[in-house]
Amino acid sequence: MAGPLRRRLPPLPLLLLAAGGLRAAERSGGSSSAMEELATEKEAEESHRQDSVSLLTFILLLTLTILTIWLFKHRRVRFLHETGLAMIYGLIVGVILRYGTPSTSGHDKPFSCSQEDRPFTTLLVNVSGKFFEYTLKGEISPGKIHNVEQNDMLRKVTFDPEVFFNILLPPIIFHAGYSLKKRHFFRNLGSILAYAFLGTAVSCFIIGNLMYGVVKLMKLVGQLSDKFYYTDCLLFGAIISATDPVTVLAIFNELHADVDLYALLFGESVLNDAVAIVLSSSIVAYQPTGENTHAFDAAAFFKSVGVFLGIFSGSFMMGAVTGVVTALVTKFTKLHCFPLLETALFFLMSWSTFLLAEACGFTGVVAVLFCGITQAHYTYNNLSVESRSRTKQLFEVLHFLAENFIFSYMGLALFTFQKHIFSPVFIIGAFVAIFLGRAAHIYPLSFLLNLGRRHKISWSFQHMMMFSGLRGAMAFALAIRDTATYSHQMMFSTTLLIVFFTVWIVGGGTTPMLSWLNIRVGVDPDQDPPPSNDSFQVLQGDGQDSARRNRTKQESAWLFRLWYSFDHNYLKPILTHSGPPLTTTLPSWCGLIARCLTSPQVYDNQEQLREEDSDFILNDGDLTVTYGDTTITANGSSGPHTATTNLDSRRTKSSSEEALERDLGAADHEVTSRGTRLVFPLEYNA
Amino acid sequence: MAGPLRRRLPPLPLLLLAAGGLRAAERSGGSSSAMEELATEKEAEESHRQDSVSLLTFILLLTLTILTIWLFKHRRVRFLHETGLAMIYGLIVGVILRYGTPSTSGHDKPFSCSQEDRPFTTLLVNVSGKFFEYTLKGEISPGKIHNVEQNDMLRKVTFDPEVFFNILLPPIIFHAGYSLKKRHFFRNLGSILAYAFLGTAVSCFIIGNLMYGVVKLMKLVGQLSDKFYYTDCLLFGAIISATDPVTVLAIFNELHADVDLYALLFGESVLNDAVAIVLSSSIVAYQPTGENTHAFDAAAFFKSVGVFLGIFSGSFMMGAVTGVVTALVTKFTKLHCFPLLETALFFLMSWSTFLLAEACGFTGVVAVLFCGITQAHYTYNNLSVESRSRTKQLFEVLHFLAENFIFSYMGLALFTFQKHIFSPVFIIGAFVAIFLGRAAHIYPLSFLLNLGRRHKISWSFQHMMMFSGLRGAMAFALAIRDTATYSHQMMFSTTLLIVFFTVWIVGGGTTPMLSWLNIRVGVDPDQDPPPSNDSFQVLQGDGQDSARRNRTKQESAWLFRLWYSFDHNYLKPILTHSGPPLTTTLPSWCGLIARCLTSPQVYDNQEQLREEDSDFILNDGDLTVTYGDTTITANGSSGPHTATTNLDSRRTKSSSEEALERDLGAADHEVTSRGTRLVFPLEYNA
Repeated sequence: MAGPLRRRLPPLPLLLLAAGGLRAAERSGGSSSAMEELATEKEAEESHRQDSVSLLTFILLLTLTILTIWLFKHRRVRFLHETGLAMIYGLIVGVILRYGTPSTSGHDKPFSCSQEDRPFTTLLVNVSGKFFEYTLKGEISPGKIHNVEQNDMLRKVTFDPEVFFNILLPPIIFHAGYSLKKRHFFRNLGSILAYAFLGTAVSCFIIGNLMYGVVKLMKLVGQLSDKFYYTDCLLFGAIISATDPVTVLAIFNELHADVDLYALLFGESVLNDAVAIVLSSSIVAYQPTGENTHAFDAAAFFKSVGVFLGIFSGSFMMGAVTGVVTALVTKFTKLHCFPLLETALFFLMSWSTFLLAEACGFTGVVAVLFCGITQAHYTYNNLSVESRSRTKQLFEVLHFLAENFIFSYMGLALFTFQKHIFSPVFIIGAFVAIFLGRAAHIYPLSFLLNLGRRHKISWSFQHMMMFSGLRGAMAFALAIRDTATYSHQMMFSTTLLIVFFTVWIVGGGTTPMLSWLNIRVGVDPDQDPPPSNDSFQVLQGDGQDSARRNRTKQESAWLFRLWYSFDHNYLKPILTHSGPPLTTTLPSWCGLIARCLTSPQVYDNQEQLREEDSDFILNDGDLTVTYGDTTITANGSSGPHTATTNLDSRRTKSSSEEALERDLGAADHEVTSRGTRLVFPLEYNA
Repeated sequence: MAGPLRRRLPPLPLLLLAAGGLRAAERSGGSSSAMEELATEKEAEESHRQDSVSLLTFILLLTLTILTIWLFKHRRVRFLHETGLAMIYGLIVGVILRYGTPSTSGHDKPFSCSQEDRPFTTLLVNVSGKFFEYTLKGEISPGKIHNVEQNDMLRKVTFDPEVFFNILLPPIIFHAGYSLKKRHFFRNLGSILAYAFLGTAVSCFIIGNLMYGVVKLMKLVGQLSDKFYYTDCLLFGAIISATDPVTVLAIFNELHADVDLYALLFGESVLNDAVAIVLSSSIVAYQPTGENTHAFDAAAFFKSVGVFLGIFSGSFMMGAVTGVVTALVTKFTKLHCFPLLETALFFLMSWSTFLLAEACGFTGVVAVLFCGITQAHYTYNNLSVESRSRTKQLFEVLHFLAENFIFSYMGLALFTFQKHIFSPVFIIGAFVAIFLGRAAHIYPLSFLLNLGRRHKISWSFQHMMMFSGLRGAMAFALAIRDTATYSHQMMFSTTLLIVFFTVWIVGGGTTPMLSWLNIRVGVDPDQDPPPSNDSFQVLQGDGQDSARRNRTKQESAWLFRLWYSFDHNYLKPILTHSGPPLTTTLPSWCGLIARCLTSPQVYDNQEQLREEDSDFILNDGDLTVTYGDTTITANGSSGPHTATTNLDSRRTKSSSEEALERDLGAADHEVTSRGTRLVFPLEYNA
C-alpha cells in the first residue's frame, strides 16, 4: 500500500524477521544469577506454550469446519455455506475464550520513563547492570494505558491485521485471478469493468455521504463521543463496497446457475476488491493541508485521484510484468520436463509479484490479482500437464485454508477483539446505506449497460446482483487494518456485523432467491462446444445470415477487438506455444526476431490448446460462433499450409485492423486449403 | 524443544503474532504534529521496502537456482548438486550485500535508562507527552552494545534462527517421513536404528571428546580468547552428527544405485536428524549444579539421559497419535469424495502435530517425522487417489522450496552473519574429528551388524556410508539456533564450513566414488514384483526348500514379527480399509466393537492395496517371497470365503503367535479354497 496507510504496515517480510523481536533474554553465559534466568525461562516457556495452544485452537476450528463442510456437502445442506459455518465455530470459541479464561495481566506492568524528543525504534534498558533491548511497538493513547491487553489468551489469539493483508489475502486473490472462468469473463468484460470501477466508486460515495448524515445525526442526538470525519465516512464507504462472492458463487457452482450471471458477479467482486483496496488507500491519502483538515480541498482531491490511478495502474503493470516474465521463462526453457521445478518457479514468481509491488510502493494484493489473470492466460498454456494440475491444486488448497481461517477469525473477533464500539444508530444507518448504495450501483448502471448490450441484463439478474452483494474477507481485512481511532473502531465493529448478516442471512437465502426470481439452474458452467470441431461450427456460422454478425459487432467494441487481435497476433505467439507464428504477423523487417521468438511448436501446431482460444466467444447467445484458430488438417500435417500463410502475410502490411482483415481473408481461403483459420464473425465478407 | 533451549524460542506461532510487535507508531488521530508523524511514516515505509527487497533477493536466488538446476538436469551435470548450487548463489549475493551496500546505522541509537529489579516484557515510554509501547527483545552483553546491527541491509537478510527450526525444517522432515521408501526401510530397520541411535551417540561423544582435546590445545597455544566448556564440545558433537542425505540420495535416485544402500543411508540420516535434535537438547539440559559447573555430574548426566528418552518417546507418541487420528477420521468419514477437503485436513492435522508437540514441551520436528511415517503407513491408504497425489505434491513443493532456501541462506550467511569466529585450529580439528567420528561409527557398527545379518553390509557399502556422511540443513539449523556465546559462534562458523565442504566436495564426488567402489547402479529403486500375482510367487516360494525360511527367520527378529502381526491384525484393520477383518482377529467378546471398526470394504476387499502389504519382504534376496495377504478369487467374489475365515478364527484363541500360526495354516488351506492367505515364510510347516 502506498501513502499514509503504509506507516502502519508490518509487512510479510517482517513476519519472518520479526521473530527475533520476541526472543526472551538470551543466554548470558554461565555467570548470571540462576534464579532470575530461571524465571525468565519459565515465562518464555509459558508464552511459547500459549502460542502453540492459540494456533492449535485455530487448527481445531478449521478441522471442525472441514468435517462439518463434508457433512453438509454429504447431506446437501445449502442454507449455510462453509464460510458461515467457520464463523459460527469461531463465535463459539470466541465466547469460550472471552468468558472461560481468567483475565490475568501477567508481568506486563507498564513502566514510565521520561525521555527527550521523539521515540527511538530501539531502546536499551539497564537493569541492575544487565542490558536489555526493547523495540518500539507503537503509540498508545494515554487513556488506554491501563485497559489494553489484559487477558493473555485473548491477546494471543489476536493476530496482527497485516497478517490478513499480507499472508491470507494474496493466495485468495491470486486463486480468484488464476481460476477466472475466462470465456464468460471476457464475454462480459465491459459490464464487469463498469460494475467494478464505476459501481464501486458510486457505492463508496453514496455510502460515505449517507454515513456522514448518520454521523451528523448521532452528533445531534449525542451518541457520538469522539471525532468522526467526512474522510472516515468515505473510508467506510470504500471498505464496505468490496463485495465477496464466495457464498453465492459456491451455490451457483453447485446449482449450475446461469453462466453470465456467474461471470458478472464473480468478475465484479474480484475486480471491486482491487478497486476498494486502492480506493481506501487514496482516501487515506486525501489529507487536505492547512487549517481546514477533513474538509474539501481540490488539490488534495486531485492528489487522491492521482494516487488512485497511480497505484492501480502500477499494481496492474507489476502483476502483468511478472506474469509475462514467467510465461517467457516457461516458454523458452524446457522446464516442463520437471514439473516440480516448474511448480516451484511458478509459485515463487507469483509470490515475487506481491513483494515487487510492495517494494515499489504499489499494492501487492492488486498486483497478485493481475498476475493471476496473466498466468492463467499465458503461462498456464506453457506448463506441463502435471504442473497445471499442481499449480491449480496448490493455490486451491492455500485459498481454501486462508479463506476459512479468515472467516473463523471473524467469528472469534466478535468476542475477542477488545475495542469494539457498537453504536445502534450507526449500525442501522450502515445497513440502510449499503442497501441504498448497492441499489444505486446496480440498477442505474444496468440500465446504462443495457442500452449497449444485445443480451440485456434482465430484471431478475439485476435483483439477484442486488441481493448478492455480500461482504466478506476483503471488507474485514480492510476494516481491521486500522482500528486505532474511535471512528475506525466503530467502523470495524459495524463491518463485522454486516459481514455476519450478509453471509448468514443473504448467503443462506441464495437458493430460495434464485428460484423465486426464476433464474435457470442446471446449466453447466463449463459448458463448452464439443472440442476440436468448433471450426466446423464457425463454418456453419459463416454460412448464416449476417444479422448475427451485426449483433456480434455491437458487442465487441473496437477497443476490445484491437486488444484481442494484438493479443492473438503478438502476445500469444511471443509468450506461449500457440497462436499464429510471429513470422506471419510481424512485419518482414522483424524477421530475425520473429524467428527467434516463435517456438517450433507453433509451426506444427496441431494439438493447439483450444481452451485458450475458445475464450472469446463474442456471441453470447446459445449458438456458439467461436473466434477460434484451430487447425484442422485432414491428413495431419500442416507444414505446407504454414508456408502459405507465411507468404500471404508478408504480402500485406500488418497494422492490427489489416491483420484482422487478412486473417479473415485467410480464413475463407483456408477453408479450402485446410490451414490455420482465424474467423472473426464480422461483416467484412458481407 | 524442552528444557533450557526453550527459553530462546520464538516459535512458529510467534511468527504470526509477532508482527504486532513491529508496528511503527500508530496513527494518533488528527491532533498530533504532522512533521513528526511524517518522519516516522517515511522511516516505516523505507523499512517496509527494505524488507520486501530482502525477501525478493531470496526469491531471485531461488529462481536462479531453479533455472540452473534445470540446466544441469538437462545437460546431465552431476558434479554439483542443486543444493551446492543454491549455496554458491547465496555466497555471491552475500558478497554483494556485504561489500556492496553502505553500512548505515539508521536511527537505532541505543538509549540507556536505569531501572529497578528485572526487565519488564513491555515498556511504556513517555516522549514529550505521548506514550510509546516497547517490547523486550532480549539481553545484550555490554561489550556488544555498539557493534550489533550496523548494516540495515545485512540485518534485514538475517532471519531469526527459529525460522529455520519452526518453519523450514518441518516440511523437509515431514516429507522425508512421508516419502520413506517403506519396503526397503523396514527390511533394514534393525541396522538403520542401530546406525541412527547408537551410531549418532558414538559419533557425538567421539567428536565431543576430540574437540575438547582441540580446545585444550588451543588454550595452551593461546588461540582461545573466551570460555569453551566440555558441554559445548559435546553440543558440537551432537550438532555435527546429524547427517544430511540430500545430495547423495539425489544422485542415488538418478543413477538407480543399490536399494539397500539407499535405504540404509536414507533411513539413518532421517532418524539421526531426530536423534541429533533430541541429543542436543539433552546436552543443553545437562547443567551440573553447584560449584563444579561444566564438569561431570552423575545426577545431571542421568537427568540428561532421562530428558533424551522423555523427549524422544514423547515426540514419537505425539506424531503417532495425530497420524492415527487422521487415519481414523479419513477412514470413518466419506471425506475422500472431496479431495480438497481431504488434503486440507491432512495438511492441518500434520501441522497440528508440530504445534501439539511444542505445546506439550516435546520437539515438534521429531514429532512431525513420526507423524509423516504414520501418515504414509496408514492414512495414505484411506485417501482418495487425487488426495494421494495432492498431498505428495504439496509436501514435495514445500520441501523443495524450504531446502533450497536453507542452502541459499547458508551461502549468504557466510558473509552476512556478523559474528563469525574462524579459528583455523578448531576448524582443522573439527574436520579430523568428524572423519574419525564417522569412521568409529560406521565400521565397528557394521561389523557388529554383519554378525547378525545374512545379507552382509559389504566393505564397499561401508566405505560409501563413511563417505556419504554429509552435513546439511539440520546441522546448520542446530548450529544457528544459539550463537550468543563465543563458543557457539565458533561452532557455527565451523559448521558452516563443514557443510560447504561436504556438500561441494563430497557431494560432487559421489558419482566417481560409486564407480570406484564398484557399487552397482542402474537398479530400479522402485523395483516391485509384478502386481497382483505375488501370491503365486509365494506359492512357488512355499514349494522350495526350507533353507530359505531358516535364513529368513534369522533376519526377522521376534520383536519385529510381533510388531508386524500386531500391525497387520489390529492396527491396519482399525485404521485403514485393508488387512483382515477385525471380526476375525479380535477375540469373540469384542465382536461388537470389531464390527463397528471394520469397514465394509475389508470384507469385499479384492482391490486390496498391495503396495502397503508388500512392504514387508522379509527375505531380502532377489527372489521375492512376499508376506502378502492378497485375495485371489477366480470368480471375483469372496463373500463365502470371508465367512469361512471368520469361523476358522473364532475356533482358535488369538494371541499374536497363534494368529500367525493360524494364518499360516489358513494359507495352506486357502490354496485350495482361494481365500485370503497370509503366508509367513517360516518353518512352521517344515
